[in-house]
Amino acid sequence: MSNRFTVAAVQLRVGNDKSANLAVAERLVGEAAARGARLVSLPELFSWGGRREEEAAAAETIPGPTSDRVAELAAGLGIYLVAGSILERADGTTKAWNTCCVFDPSGKSIATYRKIHLFDVAIADRVAVRESDTRLAGDRVEVAICDRTEVGLAICYDLRFPELFRRLVDRDAKLICMPSAFTMATGAVHWESLVRARAIENQVYLIAPNQYGRGGSGVLNYGNSMIVDPWGTVLARCGDGDGVIFADIDLDYLTRVRQEIPCLEHRVLRG
Amino acid sequence: MSNRFTVAAVQLRVGNDKSANLAVAERLVGEAAARGARLVSLPELFSWGGRREEEAAAAETIPGPTSDRVAELAAGLGIYLVAGSILERADGTTKAWNTCCVFDPSGKSIATYRKIHLFDVAIADRVAVRESDTRLAGDRVEVAICDRTEVGLAICYDLRFPELFRRLVDRDAKLICMPSAFTMATGAVHWESLVRARAIENQVYLIAPNQYGRGGSGVLNYGNSMIVDPWGTVLARCGDGDGVIFADIDLDYLTRVRQEIPCLEHRVLRG
Repeated sequence: MSNRFTVAAVQLRVGNDKSANLAVAERLVGEAAARGARLVSLPELFSWGGRREEEAAAAETIPGPTSDRVAELAAGLGIYLVAGSILERADGTTKAWNTCCVFDPSGKSIATYRKIHLFDVAIADRVAVRESDTRLAGDRVEVAICDRTEVGLAICYDLRFPELFRRLVDRDAKLICMPSAFTMATGAVHWESLVRARAIENQVYLIAPNQYGRGGSGVLNYGNSMIVDPWGTVLARCGDGDGVIFADIDLDYLTRVRQEIPCLEHRVLRG
Repeated sequence: MSNRFTVAAVQLRVGNDKSANLAVAERLVGEAAARGARLVSLPELFSWGGRREEEAAAAETIPGPTSDRVAELAAGLGIYLVAGSILERADGTTKAWNTCCVFDPSGKSIATYRKIHLFDVAIADRVAVRESDTRLAGDRVEVAICDRTEVGLAICYDLRFPELFRRLVDRDAKLICMPSAFTMATGAVHWESLVRARAIENQVYLIAPNQYGRGGSGVLNYGNSMIVDPWGTVLARCGDGDGVIFADIDLDYLTRVRQEIPCLEHRVLRG
């Protein structure tokens, strides 16, 4: 990638039929590539959503059938593909990691990030989820190098933890991809403020593809996928339905923003 | 203070006539107290704004004439007063700290916070400020105890540094007062997102009194003073002029938000 390139975020709804979900994902990623996107990001758990008790059976190894299929998709289209996340089977437990894989234009896996913060919440009359019942937490911060550009990775609930984004920018992230299935109950008030704040305070492009609607898990998701620039401007935003949004990344603009407000250099509270 | 009480934020414009500024501040703080506020916050540098080269002469010791006057104001009204900030004279240098003083209802000083992050920015065709030319940076995180409630302190540009707010919440802050003179050039895109994000991610009430208009420093400020609750809802917001905004703090609500989304307990990236 040069200093200017196009990225896209795919928004979709996810049921419990893997092949149906993958067909929609392939169609929308293909549309993104056809319209010039060099890097495309899918939402969290784009390939399967179901009930908690079905998760162990739906989990796969990585590499495995789903990751192989998206690797082929990346290679076929010649794009960087941030493959949202996949439930990744672990040895010796029925619990699974929630893992984001990044593929390069040859289909090679160049980074995997396991979601660090598990969403265990119970909001009266709105949403109750305990990911830790069926999921394992990751413990490694991950940055993919796409050509010469550092792309940090985060997933959904990670958005509430500014310290993760600081670690990504400490590793020179210029873009952060954050595949999500952010709920309607929390997204309506929290999504835009937090997404824009992470972009502003870290002076990065933030690509935040989200699920919409009520998928196989039964949770209602917020949609409103966004791409935000390092000044905090919302460059593109989805409505409530299947969709692809695009934005032009300009790393020279990012450099200018960082020079004008050198807040990343002004940090003094560390460690 | 019980678990429910009223707070207020004062918005004003600041010229280089201290006694005129103090008269406006006293009138608006008096109005806030008369309408039931138990804690009132003034904006950053509420008592004087002028050119860089006049700052050394305008700086005062603390205690000093201006801090004495606001201490008397707090005592006379019987309120907690977060006295925005005052340029605080330092020994052996013409540079001054930018210091927030908190007074209790007897007029006693219970906390002083010296702004940690200095605003050195140069945004083409919009705003150029180099606070470090005339200011000293503080190095201590401060929380005032107002009755039994922890009130964290931050000033203006500190807003861009989520790690400061994490330290305040680590010290049990339930409210954070952030006196500001946030510029129009940056505030128009950054103010609301960042203010709401700090409240959401730390699940605190955020009281953010801002200067408006073009004061004696020559910089155009954004106004839009805000009080935001721990869910991120904007409870009150000023327009563009002198004003006082009010909100009812409910610490039981804060507790409920922290129980529903226990993200402060879910932090794993520390140190």
